[in-house]
Amino acid sequence: MSVVRLRSYLSGEWTEGSGPEQILHDAGSGEPVARLRSGGHDLAAATRFGRRVGGPALRRLSFRARADLVSALARSLRGHRDEFLDLARTYGATLADARFDVDGGLGTLGHYGKLGRSLPDTHWLPDGAVEPLSRSGGFAGRHILVPREGVAVQINAYNFPCWGPLEKLGPALLAGVPTLVKPATRSAPLTCRLVERIVEAGVLPDGAIQLLVGGAGDLLDHLESQDAVLFTGSARTARRIRSHPRVIRESVRVNVEADSLNAAVLGPDGVPGSAVREAFLREVRRELAQKAGQKCTAIRRAFVPAGEFESVCRETAALVRRMSPGDPRAEDTRLGPLVDPEAVAACREGLDSLEAETERIAGDPGDPGPAGSSFGPVVLRLREGARPDAVHRVEVFGPVVTLLPYASSEEAAEGCRAGGGSLVTSVFSEDRVFLGRMTMSLAAWNGRVLTVSGRALAESTGHGTVMPQLVHGGPGRAGGGEELGGLRALSAFVNRCAIQGDPDTLDALFPEPTSGVRAAPL
Amino acid sequence: MSVVRLRSYLSGEWTEGSGPEQILHDAGSGEPVARLRSGGHDLAAATRFGRRVGGPALRRLSFRARADLVSALARSLRGHRDEFLDLARTYGATLADARFDVDGGLGTLGHYGKLGRSLPDTHWLPDGAVEPLSRSGGFAGRHILVPREGVAVQINAYNFPCWGPLEKLGPALLAGVPTLVKPATRSAPLTCRLVERIVEAGVLPDGAIQLLVGGAGDLLDHLESQDAVLFTGSARTARRIRSHPRVIRESVRVNVEADSLNAAVLGPDGVPGSAVREAFLREVRRELAQKAGQKCTAIRRAFVPAGEFESVCRETAALVRRMSPGDPRAEDTRLGPLVDPEAVAACREGLDSLEAETERIAGDPGDPGPAGSSFGPVVLRLREGARPDAVHRVEVFGPVVTLLPYASSEEAAEGCRAGGGSLVTSVFSEDRVFLGRMTMSLAAWNGRVLTVSGRALAESTGHGTVMPQLVHGGPGRAGGGEELGGLRALSAFVNRCAIQGDPDTLDALFPEPTSGVRAAPL
Repeated sequence: MSVVRLRSYLSGEWTEGSGPEQILHDAGSGEPVARLRSGGHDLAAATRFGRRVGGPALRRLSFRARADLVSALARSLRGHRDEFLDLARTYGATLADARFDVDGGLGTLGHYGKLGRSLPDTHWLPDGAVEPLSRSGGFAGRHILVPREGVAVQINAYNFPCWGPLEKLGPALLAGVPTLVKPATRSAPLTCRLVERIVEAGVLPDGAIQLLVGGAGDLLDHLESQDAVLFTGSARTARRIRSHPRVIRESVRVNVEADSLNAAVLGPDGVPGSAVREAFLREVRRELAQKAGQKCTAIRRAFVPAGEFESVCRETAALVRRMSPGDPRAEDTRLGPLVDPEAVAACREGLDSLEAETERIAGDPGDPGPAGSSFGPVVLRLREGARPDAVHRVEVFGPVVTLLPYASSEEAAEGCRAGGGSLVTSVFSEDRVFLGRMTMSLAAWNGRVLTVSGRALAESTGHGTVMPQLVHGGPGRAGGGEELGGLRALSAFVNRCAIQGDPDTLDALFPEPTSGVRAAPL
Repeated sequence: MSVVRLRSYLSGEWTEGSGPEQILHDAGSGEPVARLRSGGHDLAAATRFGRRVGGPALRRLSFRARADLVSALARSLRGHRDEFLDLARTYGATLADARFDVDGGLGTLGHYGKLGRSLPDTHWLPDGAVEPLSRSGGFAGRHILVPREGVAVQINAYNFPCWGPLEKLGPALLAGVPTLVKPATRSAPLTCRLVERIVEAGVLPDGAIQLLVGGAGDLLDHLESQDAVLFTGSARTARRIRSHPRVIRESVRVNVEADSLNAAVLGPDGVPGSAVREAFLREVRRELAQKAGQKCTAIRRAFVPAGEFESVCRETAALVRRMSPGDPRAEDTRLGPLVDPEAVAACREGLDSLEAETERIAGDPGDPGPAGSSFGPVVLRLREGARPDAVHRVEVFGPVVTLLPYASSEEAAEGCRAGGGSLVTSVFSEDRVFLGRMTMSLAAWNGRVLTVSGRALAESTGHGTVMPQLVHGGPGRAGGGEELGGLRALSAFVNRCAIQGDPDTLDALFPEPTSGVRAAPL
C-alpha cells in the first residue's frame, strides 16, 4: 500500500501544512500508510472563511433546498463506498466493522436528505403556534428557528472516521451551517478521502466544508459566539474543550458525546434456555467483537440475576473462547486489532485498575501481533464479596466486559446508574413489570434504553447501533450532549428566537408554511 | 423599620448560619434593614437532601398533579403580595418597579400552574411519535421526557428578587425537580420572605425548596451530574460557574441568562410626529426609568436613521430632563435609586469607559442622595466621527442609553449584532420590508425581537417585559441560555431518553396519554 500524504482543506485550499512529519501505521500489519504535518495553518482565517463564505452561501438556500443538496451529496458518496471500506482496514476494521462505519455514515447522511424533504421552502422554521399576548388581540408572539451564523467545528473520535463526520454534517448542512472537520489523527486517512470526495462532488458551496488534519492547534482560540463545537471522544478531552477560556467567554455552544460505562441487564426471567438469555449472550458477544469493543456505546458492564450468575459467567466465558483477534483484511476475521499499540497499553492499564475488584474468567490480553495492536477479548466477573467501584468508573476501551450479579430490580438499576450517566442500557426480559421499573429508573440516566422482548428479540438493531431516528448522547459521564434524533439534530445548529408584534405583521413576515412540517420537534 | 435577621432554609431546617455578620441597607434611606451570616452551612448535606428527599417526593406525583401544586402555591403567595411589595422598596424599587417584580413573579408562577393542566397524568411526557426501526415492524423507538434526578440550583440577580426565583421555580416544580435558591445578597430580604411564605403554605413536599442566604460558599463543589445550575447575572460570574471544575467534570447542566447590550431601532419611516417615533421615544424613556435601568433586558443602545439623528437626540434629551431619582417610597417617584453605592460606582466607571466614544446630551450622574445610591439618568450620543467599540461592549447597568445613527438597514443590523448576542432588540417601523430584513438579520443574535407597528403600537407589552409564553435568553454575550417559553421551560429540568423495543411492549409501558398534550414542544 502506498503511503499517502494527508492534506487539510482550509479556506478553500488543499494544504499539506508544515512542521514535523507524523507517520500513521496500519493497525493490522504495522506498515506505514500515511504521513501528515500539523502546523502552519491559519485557523483564524479558516473559521472566518466558514462564517463569511460558507455560512451565507448555505443560508441563501431554503431548508428544503438544502435537503436536496444533502441527498445529492449522499448519492455521490455512495459511489465511493468500496474505497472507503478499503481505507477502513487501515485502522483495524474487519469487513463488518468497516460496513458498520461506512454504511452507517452514508445511510445517516441519506436519511437526513430524506428527512429534510419534509421541511418547508423557507429560510426559517416555525416552532409552535402564534401566541396571543394582549387581551384585545393586537399583540402576539411566535417562535422561529434560524441557522446559527457561525461555523460548526467537529472534533471526532478515531473509531468512526466515516460515520462520525457524516452524522454531524447531515444535520449541519440541513440547518444551513458550515462545518470544519477535525478527525482523530489515527484514523484520518478515511476521513481525508471522504472530504476529498465531498469536495470533488461539487455539490456544496465554497466554505461549507473544511478539514483540519493533525493537531487542533489554536483552533479553539478563534471560536466566536455563533460557533459550535461538536465533540465525540474521551471525557478528559471533553473537559479541556468545555473549560477553554474562549469557549466559556463566547458562550460557544458545545455538544459532548463521551465514552461511558454502558450496561446490559438480563431480567429475572433469563433462565437457562430462555430466548432473552440467548439474546443477552449474543449481544454481549457481539459488543465484544464489533470494532473490538472500541465503541462509545459498547457494553462494559453486564448485570445478571444472582441466581443465574454462575451459569451465565460460564456461558459467557465459553462464548469468547474461540474468539481471538485476527487480520482485519481476512474474510473470516470476526475480531480485529485495536487501533494502535497505545490503545493496547491503555486497555492493559484499565485491566490493572479493575484487578482488585474483578477476576478474569475468559480470554487474556494476548499476543499484540505484528503491529502491536492486538488485544483480548477479556471477560471479567466481580470478585465475590468485592464492592464495585472502579468497575463503574474505569472504561476499558476495547473487547472487555465485566459481569455483575444483582439481587433485585432496585439493585440492578442502582448498578447501572452507578456509571454516572450512560449512552445506552439494554434490558433483556419478557417481564413487563420488570421492564417498566427498569426503564423508568434508567431513563434519566441514559440517552437510550433498549428493551429486548417479544418481536424485538429477532428484530432489534442492537445495543451498540445508533439510529438516526433516535437521539444519541447521555447525561453526566456520557457528556450531557444530544445528537441525531431525527430533526431534533437541527437544534445544535439553529437558534430559537421569539418574534413579537402585531399579528398581521407577524403573519406577513412569517406566514405559516403551506407545505412541510408545521413544527420541528426540537 | 426593624432590622430582620435573614435565615437560610437547608435540609429542612431554618438556620442563621455563622461567621461574620453582614448588614444590608435600604437603597433609599440608607438605614439598616437586615443582617445575615453566610458561613457554617453543610451544603453537601443540603444538595443531598434535595436529591434524596425532595426529588423522590416530587417524582411520586404525575406532571398533572404537580401542576395543581404549582397553582395552589401561586394562590397562597398572592395573599402576601402587599408584604412583598413593601419589601421590594428596600432595594430601591418604586411602586411600579415593585409591581413589575412581584406581580410578574406571581403571575408567571400562576401561568405555569395553568399551563401544567394541559399535561397528562403520567410520570413521563411523550416526545414525538413512535418510530418504526425494522422493516417487518417488530422493532421501534420512542422518545420520552422524565424529571432529572438532581437538584436545580438557582443563582439569582439582585434586580428581581421575586420574579427571578418564581420564574425558575414554576417550571422546576412542574417538571418534578427540587430547587435550591441562592438569591443575590443585596435584595435577599424579599426572597427570604418569599421562601418563608412558600414553606408556610405547606403545599410543597419536604426538600422541594431550599434557600441559601449570603455567599454561595462551596455549593458548586457538591453538584452532581443530574443537577442543574440556573444562573441570572453578570457575564463574569457566569464564566466562573461555567469553568468550575466540578461543573465541568460532572457535565452539570448550566443555563445562563447574562446581562447583554440590548438595542432598539427606529425605522427609516420614523419621521417627526410619526406614531412609530412616538412609541420609540416612549420606550426609550420607560426603559431608563423602569428599575432605574437595572434590568438585563433594558435598552442600552438606540439606533436612529442618520437623517433623523439630530432631532431624535434633542427629543430624547428633552424627555429625561424632568426625570431625576427620588425616594422609592414616594407615590409620585418614577425613577428610583440604584440598589447600593457600589452600583453607582460601577455605573460611573462604565460612563468613563464610554467617554472617548460618546458625549452626554442630557442628565448627569447627579447627587448620590442620602443612601449614596441615586444616579442619572444619562443620555449619550455617539461622538461625531467616533468608531463605536466600547458602546457595543460596556454595559452600564443603570439608567443610561446611547444613541447611534445608521445609514442603512444593513448598518443598523450590523450595529445591533456588534453587541455579540442580546436578550432582546426592538424595531419600531411600519415598513414591512425593513421589518422583514431586520428580523431575519437579528433572529440568530437575539432571544427575542420585538416589532412595533400597527396594533402593537398601542398594545405591546414592551421591550423590557419578559412574558412566560416566550423564551427568555440569548446567544453569546447574553449567555447562550433559554428560560420560559411556555412548556419549553421544562427542558432545563427533564432528560430526554429514547426507548427502543417491540412495539407492543412500548405501547404497554408508555401508552399514548389520553388527555393532555401529545408532545411538549421543547
